[in-house]
Amino acid sequence: MPQTDPIRPTDDDARNLAQGLLRGATYGALGVLVDGAPMVTRVAVGMAGADPLILVSTLSEHTRALLADPACSLLVGEPGPKGDPLTHPRLTLQCLAESAEKATHRGAWLDRHPKSKLYIDFGDFLFLRLAVQAAHLNGGFGKAFRLTASDLGAA
Amino acid sequence: MPQTDPIRPTDDDARNLAQGLLRGATYGALGVLVDGAPMVTRVAVGMAGADPLILVSTLSEHTRALLADPACSLLVGEPGPKGDPLTHPRLTLQCLAESAEKATHRGAWLDRHPKSKLYIDFGDFLFLRLAVQAAHLNGGFGKAFRLTASDLGAA
Repeated sequence: MPQTDPIRPTDDDARNLAQGLLRGATYGALGVLVDGAPMVTRVAVGMAGADPLILVSTLSEHTRALLADPACSLLVGEPGPKGDPLTHPRLTLQCLAESAEKATHRGAWLDRHPKSKLYIDFGDFLFLRLAVQAAHLNGGFGKAFRLTASDLGAA
Repeated sequence: MPQTDPIRPTDDDARNLAQGLLRGATYGALGVLVDGAPMVTRVAVGMAGADPLILVSTLSEHTRALLADPACSLLVGEPGPKGDPLTHPRLTLQCLAESAEKATHRGAWLDRHPKSKLYIDFGDFLFLRLAVQAAHLNGGFGKAFRLTASDLGAA
């Protein structure tokens, strides 16, 4: 029989899996609000402390959307080429986007994303820190957890 | 200099690329609205005519969200294990979720997703057709297009 409440109690295994998915991510799927509807796009991902960091252009619709309404969501945890995508663990973050200094994050970003040196210094590119408010971990079929920012390592 | 309007005129190459990304997708990132904020989760993807089809459980938050507000977005076009995720083409669909008959879509779904036979007949699983309202194709850095449902093959 299917479970009626698929959410399991959060434990250290869930926290470790979630932190590993986030820290190992180089890209993810970003959800923003455009005219009241969700819009999902791909973004490169880095870290700003325990929060994800994105480098985006003001010429992009997702950036304009985040500057108008900072509520967003980021999905990380990409399946490998052979695994079943729906049994591969993934992490959904509920976040609020806030501005982040380019000078502070430029070096670590380029270490993780060396190809972005082609455009990181364009005037239309900026960093946004996605301050985590809550998270949902799906560790595979029937293994779901609700996490807090502190479960993800926030001080 | 960066372009000030990164959107290019839609041509047949863009239409073919977008249709190929959608028809080749076995999974994607779904954006829904939860308490007015976007939430992005991973879903398995099939086709219902020219629209994407998803198989979801009413025990999942994204399903409850779609039944309350059908506005959603689906990102398809997964990078391979070696490519640069941000130069790999991807397609963002703006959709409205509507109910779809399980009997109509069951066979084609199982052909594409044989492992789902483990749960497709559970009473909490249902199909939703994501009727495409508009689409954004990103064919790589600086190659962006706005597409209509008919560009994606809708009759």
